[in-house]
Amino acid sequence: MTLLAPLDFAATKALFHLPEGVIYLDGNSLGPLPRATPARVADCVQAEWGDMLIGGWNKAGWMDQPARLGARIARLIGAEPEAVVLGDTLSIKIYQALAAALQLNPTRRVILSDSGNFPSDLYMAEGLVKMLGQGYSLRIVAPDDIADALDENVAVMMLTQVDYRTGRLHDMADLTRHAHQKGALTLWDLAHSAGALPIDLSGCGVDFAAGCTYKYLNGGPGAPAFIYVAPRHAAHVAPALSGWLGHAAPFDFSPTYQPGQGVSRLRVGTPAVLQMAALEAALDIWDRVDIAALRAASITLSEMFLTGVQDLCPELRLASPRAAAHRGSQVSFHHPQGYAIMQALIAKGVIGDFRAPDILRFGFTPLYIGADEVRGAVDILAQIMGDRSWDRPQFHRRAAVT
Amino acid sequence: MTLLAPLDFAATKALFHLPEGVIYLDGNSLGPLPRATPARVADCVQAEWGDMLIGGWNKAGWMDQPARLGARIARLIGAEPEAVVLGDTLSIKIYQALAAALQLNPTRRVILSDSGNFPSDLYMAEGLVKMLGQGYSLRIVAPDDIADALDENVAVMMLTQVDYRTGRLHDMADLTRHAHQKGALTLWDLAHSAGALPIDLSGCGVDFAAGCTYKYLNGGPGAPAFIYVAPRHAAHVAPALSGWLGHAAPFDFSPTYQPGQGVSRLRVGTPAVLQMAALEAALDIWDRVDIAALRAASITLSEMFLTGVQDLCPELRLASPRAAAHRGSQVSFHHPQGYAIMQALIAKGVIGDFRAPDILRFGFTPLYIGADEVRGAVDILAQIMGDRSWDRPQFHRRAAVT
Repeated sequence: MTLLAPLDFAATKALFHLPEGVIYLDGNSLGPLPRATPARVADCVQAEWGDMLIGGWNKAGWMDQPARLGARIARLIGAEPEAVVLGDTLSIKIYQALAAALQLNPTRRVILSDSGNFPSDLYMAEGLVKMLGQGYSLRIVAPDDIADALDENVAVMMLTQVDYRTGRLHDMADLTRHAHQKGALTLWDLAHSAGALPIDLSGCGVDFAAGCTYKYLNGGPGAPAFIYVAPRHAAHVAPALSGWLGHAAPFDFSPTYQPGQGVSRLRVGTPAVLQMAALEAALDIWDRVDIAALRAASITLSEMFLTGVQDLCPELRLASPRAAAHRGSQVSFHHPQGYAIMQALIAKGVIGDFRAPDILRFGFTPLYIGADEVRGAVDILAQIMGDRSWDRPQFHRRAAVT
Repeated sequence: MTLLAPLDFAATKALFHLPEGVIYLDGNSLGPLPRATPARVADCVQAEWGDMLIGGWNKAGWMDQPARLGARIARLIGAEPEAVVLGDTLSIKIYQALAAALQLNPTRRVILSDSGNFPSDLYMAEGLVKMLGQGYSLRIVAPDDIADALDENVAVMMLTQVDYRTGRLHDMADLTRHAHQKGALTLWDLAHSAGALPIDLSGCGVDFAAGCTYKYLNGGPGAPAFIYVAPRHAAHVAPALSGWLGHAAPFDFSPTYQPGQGVSRLRVGTPAVLQMAALEAALDIWDRVDIAALRAASITLSEMFLTGVQDLCPELRLASPRAAAHRGSQVSFHHPQGYAIMQALIAKGVIGDFRAPDILRFGFTPLYIGADEVRGAVDILAQIMGDRSWDRPQFHRRAAVT
């Protein structure tokens, strides 16, 4: 397969549908639509569901989609191809991985995480330890204190590699090594890193990982999550969510559960076939992306944005690490009126997002965002900050934006 | 809204796409494609995701889909409109409901179910009690022994209303009353009853229910599940799968979990937007279906099939209850060569399904199956049984069919 040169921007940009007049700096929240996706989804609906009916499970390969797509995502995250499977949502996959880690490290009772983790990961951990009782607990420390907080009680260290608000990038290799030295297992949430930067799960010796496919990977709203289990662990996991599609032989309809081979045991119920078809079309692009070159381009773009904003918008205070090597593919700024400023920006076609309490977040996705878009976004932001046009009543209503 | 008369068969049949030459008696496994669905899904992909991008969460109403569709499904299952929410898969919803029931009935340790339950429900319960430890257990008895097995240890009685193999219909009102008399809560799986027969969750005083929408309800492969929590319980449930979209204020990104209002706390992660759009198109039909009239038509059709097969195919032994009042909307037969017979039938365009070890299963869905189809299916089955054409090598290969 020929890798797409991510610097051949005209070629990669043409693969995505972006509305006229929009500079989309929110692909880190919901990636835009690949141009090939509507036809693929339509085919799944009409030619597969419509014409094959129940036969689609075999004839159209619906049953194997979760493993087939997992093998394609594996390349993007440095995983063994058989160690990744798709399904459910990221929160569910986090729960499964945490339950498995606690089971594999049974003499310890603490889940360690940091305050930069995505709240849902913390909520799922909170629900799990509450249900388990028996002294299980969730310990949350500041991101910089993780290494020091690893003690003999920590069963599993759960971290999101790239902070959803600030873009701060954890050192996966280093923290994983630390955790292992202290006898803890590791769970990495890749929501903001898969499709944004090179990841080497296998090389880092990571135990569990999970991520979503609707952000950088362009799988569409509600696209399925993925889960990674290191092959050395997979056969020892007794799944907490032991659904029939994780069974060794689902169609034997045996009354007792027998886990399937490897990571397939972390499948639960019927896969979301239409969402998987949409993701499949996006992976046709991702199969050809050189992640190292993509990362280089994303650093160029985000540095250009960061320095431009620092030059022209002194009111905005950088929320991201200054060094590109310590950031994911996003740049964030604080401003007390961040919500209104983002609404004013969106009204002018520059789409980033706001994260409570005061963060303006901008994602850089080099397949469809280039230097012109970045310059345009800086100019418009500078104009809004200069003329204070954000300070109009229509921009101050608070609404839910994911 | 005008209810569709289900006996105006030409009108309702025209709402579905069915391939030429196919008699589809497997809508109880995967419902066929409504003709309006491809356009609705295409619109969700292009006009919503493509053009609204991240704005679709508010502008296209994606965030509220799970509750909005829940209110529409509520009518079909006799539920309070605010007591149903969509999401995840049926196995996940079963787990959530079981965990909630155990939490609400904390002095008891037994989940009671029957051997006719769908295996995944039993597997999820098995995984849950294993994880909880502390004396929790799953007790499985024969379907007829449920009432006698309700004792002072049973925290929750979990039953599937219609047996997936035989079509045997449990008496929901009676068993729920029994369970309550014995101090147990109830969880009903409606996979094979929602969209097949009148259900009165509220009138029966059911505590929890869950179901899927890809069978009788035509939501498509991988369509989301639904969960019902009786309003008297909802505010007391501490969700085991405490994901951010079940939080009282997901976009505050608070570090600690606060359950949302009512059943919305049983949402977990990002909803499967494309699947929800497909389901929405199907519910445009279901909103207009008179369930009592549908049930009457389904009994007429299944009686016609049952008596026809009994007359013409004496080798097939009835696996379903003989009395229509004790059956759901399917009729099943035993035959030691059931698999090969079903393959031969499918080769002739009559699509039912096979369930291990020896069951031929046929579903009757009066919106698109009429008397002509039933007569045609009986004739072809009789022909295959008469000339033993099923006994050819090509029909004997065993494959997974869901």
